[in-house]
Amino acid sequence: MKKGKGMEQRLTLITLGVADLKQSAAFYIDGLGWKATEASNEEIIFIEMNGFFLSLYPHGELAKDANTQEDRSNFRGFSLSYNVSSRSQVDEILAFAEKAGAKIIKPAQNVFWGGYSGYFSDPDGFLWEVAHGSSMDPEPDVEENN
Amino acid sequence: MKKGKGMEQRLTLITLGVADLKQSAAFYIDGLGWKATEASNEEIIFIEMNGFFLSLYPHGELAKDANTQEDRSNFRGFSLSYNVSSRSQVDEILAFAEKAGAKIIKPAQNVFWGGYSGYFSDPDGFLWEVAHGSSMDPEPDVEENN
Repeated sequence: MKKGKGMEQRLTLITLGVADLKQSAAFYIDGLGWKATEASNEEIIFIEMNGFFLSLYPHGELAKDANTQEDRSNFRGFSLSYNVSSRSQVDEILAFAEKAGAKIIKPAQNVFWGGYSGYFSDPDGFLWEVAHGSSMDPEPDVEENN
Repeated sequence: MKKGKGMEQRLTLITLGVADLKQSAAFYIDGLGWKATEASNEEIIFIEMNGFFLSLYPHGELAKDANTQEDRSNFRGFSLSYNVSSRSQVDEILAFAEKAGAKIIKPAQNVFWGGYSGYFSDPDGFLWEVAHGSSMDPEPDVEENN
């Protein structure tokens, strides 16, 4: 499969939309003893897992980022993110997912954190973000044209 | 940290509770082209990701397994699983998580698929299963007493 056309069997982060970031930090960081990465701040917490990241982010902010109503019954309060190594790949993956039956929830666009991302949902409404522009992006292929 | 006492920064699988397994397979397997593992069957689908598994399982069955009402507003329709290498570790991790502030949703018990597992929830109600007895369990430590 040519990289950038299809979607590989991987993900970059799982984001849990939380009611209170301090309360979540009290559990995951102080309680379980897990370590926040240096990229964490008062607005988001990242925890490095086995090959991907778990992030904790306010529930309403996540809904807004995903272009979803916070109280909509099909917002499950979390998202799965798939980072890619170029903006064009974000467009390609969203188009590929839509062709596979996904619903585009948020077309790819420049986002507040400086990157470029969009969201699709699977048949049950589970949210996948496709993103580029963060330190979590994979390395580009050598032959890849950014 | 002594293995078996604390909870490592990792997870074994993410389970999405789906309305219709065939519909989900049509998207993830036929649409995205992802491969189901040999352990998959008509009741559950496992997809190997980057160091963990994504599983697709009927929504109502997942709620039942987690001892949760399917229509309960805080059931997000998915769970995160943390597999360990012995039954005693399941008990230890659940006790550790409870001490850290988790709520025990289902005490550890023998389960229908032949393993031993329990569930806790984080402060937002996100579900974590702690399980032993599947092919996804990590290898035991050499000094570990099963």
